[in-house]
Amino acid sequence: MSLHELNNLPGVTAVPDSATEHFVFNHTMLRVKDITRSLDFYTRVLGFSLVEKRDFPEAAFSLYFLALVDKKTIPQDAAARTEWMKSIPGILELTHNHGTETDASFAYHNGNTDPRGFGHICIAVPDVRAACERFESLGVDFQKRLSDGRMKSLAFIKDPDGYWVEIIQPTPVSA
Amino acid sequence: MSLHELNNLPGVTAVPDSATEHFVFNHTMLRVKDITRSLDFYTRVLGFSLVEKRDFPEAAFSLYFLALVDKKTIPQDAAARTEWMKSIPGILELTHNHGTETDASFAYHNGNTDPRGFGHICIAVPDVRAACERFESLGVDFQKRLSDGRMKSLAFIKDPDGYWVEIIQPTPVSA
Repeated sequence: MSLHELNNLPGVTAVPDSATEHFVFNHTMLRVKDITRSLDFYTRVLGFSLVEKRDFPEAAFSLYFLALVDKKTIPQDAAARTEWMKSIPGILELTHNHGTETDASFAYHNGNTDPRGFGHICIAVPDVRAACERFESLGVDFQKRLSDGRMKSLAFIKDPDGYWVEIIQPTPVSA
Repeated sequence: MSLHELNNLPGVTAVPDSATEHFVFNHTMLRVKDITRSLDFYTRVLGFSLVEKRDFPEAAFSLYFLALVDKKTIPQDAAARTEWMKSIPGILELTHNHGTETDASFAYHNGNTDPRGFGHICIAVPDVRAACERFESLGVDFQKRLSDGRMKSLAFIKDPDGYWVEIIQPTPVSA
């Protein structure tokens, strides 16, 4: 579909209000049961860096902000790092309500069974086959392998809470 | 907290596997009931551009991909636009299951009541007060105004499905 056609679909404002200039889709927030397992998954398996942590002891929760960037681009200075982290797209915020990790019956809802809503996050990788082979070797849970279903160019893995993480490759995947 | 301290928290892999180089947190997917209302909200109120639409008529759903970028950076050519759209962070994917918009009793779950999980997406804006005044003038629903609660530097608005959209300013907000 051409950009012209997209811009003429019902509901679409083709020329955005200049007041929205420099707006940035900064982050997505997910609640996680066991922050240690989630930090391991997002930093070791997917390559995110933890760039900020905020504790709210009186309300018994902590926030963790992760960025999937070249480590060399992360400001060392904490104040500069906060401003940088709030100004770029692609940040993942994890909320940990203290104590959920020791409650065997506790689980968050991943949005893909009733009641549905949120679906998934997605990581783009240079080589989707190589990435999925590595996930297999690391013992990562798959929701959909490349070979499953009709869409052979994409996979879905699951994070420690069962949230779906789509894995795609920007360029066409050869058959 | 220093980067050194962050890198030493339990679970954190301080030096990511080189296999994750060039991984990009590309998108977040939300299901929406009425795509026309959602496109209006995300393009008119928040300034997103619709950059791709994919229809799956046999399964009665369509996918809409939105980017919050300078319009001039969007490739005109459809194949180039797809590759570009899959390679950058900060894409929002909206899934529309056809027909939900005419079912008065149908609603998606925003993740912030039981069963909880997904929390919100967040838009960074240059001036959070000016942005919130504009949202008020546009009749946008607020979950939390700047003046509500203890966090006076951030707000939460609601999209047409009731998903929470946090509004922040990267720089400190003067009292």
